Amino acid sequence: MNKYLDLIRSIPDFPKKGIVFKDITPLIKDPEAFASVVNDMTRPFINDKIDIVVAVEARGYIFGAPIANRLNCGFVPVRKPGKLPYVTSSIEYSLEYGTETLEIHQDAIDRGQKVLVVDDVLATGGTLEATIQLVEKVGGEISGIAVLIDLVQLHAEDILSPYKFFSLMDI
Amino acid sequence: MNKYLDLIRSIPDFPKKGIVFKDITPLIKDPEAFASVVNDMTRPFINDKIDIVVAVEARGYIFGAPIANRLNCGFVPVRKPGKLPYVTSSIEYSLEYGTETLEIHQDAIDRGQKVLVVDDVLATGGTLEATIQLVEKVGGEISGIAVLIDLVQLHAEDILSPYKFFSLMDI
Repeated sequence: MNKYLDLIRSIPDFPKKGIVFKDITPLIKDPEAFASVVNDMTRPFINDKIDIVVAVEARGYIFGAPIANRLNCGFVPVRKPGKLPYVTSSIEYSLEYGTETLEIHQDAIDRGQKVLVVDDVLATGGTLEATIQLVEKVGGEISGIAVLIDLVQLHAEDILSPYKFFSLMDI
Repeated sequence: MNKYLDLIRSIPDFPKKGIVFKDITPLIKDPEAFASVVNDMTRPFINDKIDIVVAVEARGYIFGAPIANRLNCGFVPVRKPGKLPYVTSSIEYSLEYGTETLEIHQDAIDRGQKVLVVDDVLATGGTLEATIQLVEKVGGEISGIAVLIDLVQLHAEDILSPYKFFSLMDI
């Protein structure tokens, strides 16, 4: 079905043995494909009065920042520990290959602002779940989730079920 | 002069004592300011037939990705070691706080493609110089450089002088 699938490169055993990594770089270096996937990921949320797009470093920014621009939203980065310079809230969680901590600026989101979370690849959902919790911790309200690729077999449905969710490619 | 300056927060002694970090997060969470700076950084290059925008993780992507979209360009990420899954070219260089290595996919840029390098803050210029060298190593041709903030006292002019250079704020 999906016209972009040929532009996703599968890399076996990266970053660890047994994991097939989905490499999005062939897609984003193609001008038409990159613009088109950003449009497609934006469209479902155009009428949702989103205030803020939140994305996790680093690849999440490649989609989150242009989507924020198109929705006339602000953009809020979630980062690895020690990268954000101001007062942060943080969360620790487990993911496919170990434990991870994420941080957000405490003043990043005003109470009740509507947030769209954007990421490139949804795998186990651990990063997404942690990001949702971080957003809620600082007062935001999750209005939706948009991902480029959903690796549907890796995560439980109940992570997504409370939210409006859009994935461009299900693999 | 600059209307965005109030939205840049100075954080003393981050990430190390003696360094005043320029925090761009208040600017990018403001919808109008974020859209406006992306437009302003794009405008000087609109007629330059840019093929590819290159940016360095992670903050560079926040500006590089939307600028690529607006120029109808592809986007190529430069990353820290071990993050890019395919065959890479790499470069080691020294910067304000230590030594750093950057990588790019060897197939990221076709020979002779015109490249715009985008970053958030230009400090000593070490990262920018390394990025330029990486781009040229894989066959790209530097057409221009766009940064949000130029910390003019920290770098030598000769890093920039061969190139078309645009900075939105000189501090």
